[in-house]
Amino acid sequence: MERMTDLVVSDAAQVATPTGSDGDNSNSGLEIIENGAVAIEDGVVVAVGPTADVTRAHPPENATESVDATGQTVLPGFVDPHTHAVFAGDRVDEFTAKLAGASYQDILAEGGGILRTVRSTRDASRDELVANLLENLDTMLAHGTTTVEVKSGYGLDVETELKLLEAIDEAADRHPIDVVPTFMGAHAVPKGADTEEYVDRVIEEQLPAVADAGLAEFCDVFCEAGVFSVPQSRRILAAGQELGLTPKIHAEEFERLGGSQLAADCGATSADHLLQATDEDIAALGEAGVTPVLLPGTAFSLGAAYADAAAFEAADVPVALATDFNPNCFSQSMESVVELACNGMRMTPAAAIRGATATAARAVDRTDGTGTIREGAPGDLAIATVTNYQHIPYNFGVSNVRTVIKNGTVVHRD
Amino acid sequence: MERMTDLVVSDAAQVATPTGSDGDNSNSGLEIIENGAVAIEDGVVVAVGPTADVTRAHPPENATESVDATGQTVLPGFVDPHTHAVFAGDRVDEFTAKLAGASYQDILAEGGGILRTVRSTRDASRDELVANLLENLDTMLAHGTTTVEVKSGYGLDVETELKLLEAIDEAADRHPIDVVPTFMGAHAVPKGADTEEYVDRVIEEQLPAVADAGLAEFCDVFCEAGVFSVPQSRRILAAGQELGLTPKIHAEEFERLGGSQLAADCGATSADHLLQATDEDIAALGEAGVTPVLLPGTAFSLGAAYADAAAFEAADVPVALATDFNPNCFSQSMESVVELACNGMRMTPAAAIRGATATAARAVDRTDGTGTIREGAPGDLAIATVTNYQHIPYNFGVSNVRTVIKNGTVVHRD
Ligand SMILES: [Zn+2]
Ligand SMILES: [Zn+2]
Repeated sequence: MERMTDLVVSDAAQVATPTGSDGDNSNSGLEIIENGAVAIEDGVVVAVGPTADVTRAHPPENATESVDATGQTVLPGFVDPHTHAVFAGDRVDEFTAKLAGASYQDILAEGGGILRTVRSTRDASRDELVANLLENLDTMLAHGTTTVEVKSGYGLDVETELKLLEAIDEAADRHPIDVVPTFMGAHAVPKGADTEEYVDRVIEEQLPAVADAGLAEFCDVFCEAGVFSVPQSRRILAAGQELGLTPKIHAEEFERLGGSQLAADCGATSADHLLQATDEDIAALGEAGVTPVLLPGTAFSLGAAYADAAAFEAADVPVALATDFNPNCFSQSMESVVELACNGMRMTPAAAIRGATATAARAVDRTDGTGTIREGAPGDLAIATVTNYQHIPYNFGVSNVRTVIKNGTVVHRD
Repeated sequence: MERMTDLVVSDAAQVATPTGSDGDNSNSGLEIIENGAVAIEDGVVVAVGPTADVTRAHPPENATESVDATGQTVLPGFVDPHTHAVFAGDRVDEFTAKLAGASYQDILAEGGGILRTVRSTRDASRDELVANLLENLDTMLAHGTTTVEVKSGYGLDVETELKLLEAIDEAADRHPIDVVPTFMGAHAVPKGADTEEYVDRVIEEQLPAVADAGLAEFCDVFCEAGVFSVPQSRRILAAGQELGLTPKIHAEEFERLGGSQLAADCGATSADHLLQATDEDIAALGEAGVTPVLLPGTAFSLGAAYADAAAFEAADVPVALATDFNPNCFSQSMESVVELACNGMRMTPAAAIRGATATAARAVDRTDGTGTIREGAPGDLAIATVTNYQHIPYNFGVSNVRTVIKNGTVVHRD
């Protein structure tokens, strides 16, 4: 008896997928299949290739669902490996105040900045946080994201950090997007607290409670001048590691503090931001197998310079891309990140799409083929109404993703 | 007998409209009506104000069509006053080649650049050009544009320039967007031609034919080093003026050549690009009543610096914003332009929205209230799923416009 295929996507102008195996990320190119098709069974890709070949083995008319992708381009679903997507309130008024000339100090004096989001998040119920996150996950999905990392970090106390991780867990259960939870109690120093004492609390109270609840996979820290020093960051990441949480780090964003070297030393999965990273830092990350994550939306929303993507390219260290979605960088769209990476950071479309898929999957330790379209990989696809993947960043400011498939099911259609 | 209202939009979180009359463009602010409504009759706004007041006089249940805008923001439809939206082919491969390191010279050597689009446009049928333009107008409309200027200029001979203007005319007839046609035979110098001789041809052949056909309202010229000099530009604009075409000019984009002063001298409606404009140029434009048009998408797609919006703000000369949509700056979205203006050029959300509506209308000589929501203005609205207009640029990379109304009719709904 013939097995029924769950989903067949056929007749695509292009199927574009990162080349190489999980471990071999050196090739920044994409493999392009013209007039391509993909078949998915039990949520997993079982065939990808020319439409004639794939549909011979998996006739669309026998599939549970089929998608005619004529004139469209099929990509792996985007992986967004760095977001702070769970919080209450927004900071749109601060955005406007800054554009009208207010300084960071003015905004802090008005009670603004990250600690304002901490206050509103502490005041919010878990249900409210779940609802907010689900709404943002919907927007992400509509722009092609099928896997997203979400950090806690607007609690800064054990109770609220747990509430945030519980909200992430519940939203993940209720939404098609795969959510990777990260604990980030060390996102900022709470108002009035001594930094060293707060580090002790993260290590002695928050981390054990989070590990006990089994609600986080990664532990992240904001290693930056005036926030957490390299020794403080090292203590936190080491304590997390002992409890089974894999390190991630916010490194060299405003000053070059040494977070890259720390990431290399402790075997972090990723080091993120890296605006001030030197060639030495880049080499250290590359040698240690730490995935660099660049966040062009953050620079864009600040009107600041982008990270030096060319330096990573020159060092042959592939970069992942992420939205950094948070109240200060309010964009949920990985499509937009690809546009910013090409137009702003001057990456090629192929490198940007790889950074938003296969390399992004590495930045969240997904080694099951997530971010690629090949046999055995999760059946996660983003289908765009363009005849060539290069049109996605070329046609900037416009969303071209219309159909999104998660584990072989159509979960979004415009 | 009570007159029936064509359309009532009610219960909007905000109705936001530029303040001031047509002539008074000095105030860069917006008027915000909380819980607002708009009524439209015979295509024209007949009431705008608090929902209670507007719906008392114009009950939604008696209207032909009504829109419940709860939780949403109502803006004037965007006016895009500078596009080159009618052409055949694209140049996505050149976009990629440039990102991979090709120089402008490399691309020219490969037969690329603007003259490639001229070749494909000469080869295209009028029907093909109409179809392309209609598709782009659809994308513009979906992002809130209700009035757009479209330039010819990929023909560079009398036959093709007429074909382009005819295509604009036919697309305008078939599409809800109001289209403002501009003749721009002086967009580039054709391959192998002598510039001075080509200027003669524009003046002696193209302009009379265009004026005869009655197919253009404006005459534009690319006044730039290596293209058309100030004296050549002056001759073309003066010849156009004699035939009833109002001058517009591409000025000070790569070099400061003197196009601003020429625009002031000849009473141009707008001077566009202005990346190299000095304070003196800005003052000259302001005094002469020439509307400056800034094009942040052009800079974005080139990875280049933006125009100095702060210098215009300091001189109290309000700027219009436009997409510059063309094969080298492939974005149809005025929503995205507002995002670029705020995040990139550091304009305030109010100034950017005014620049994309009321001031943009001035840049195409629309003095009937286009770009505002007030009694007597055209019933053109863009409705976004945000509670505050500031969210439009704050939530960058994501389109928030969901409903578009042209002359009192819903013409787009997501
Ligand atoms: Zn972050
Ligand atoms: Zn132009």
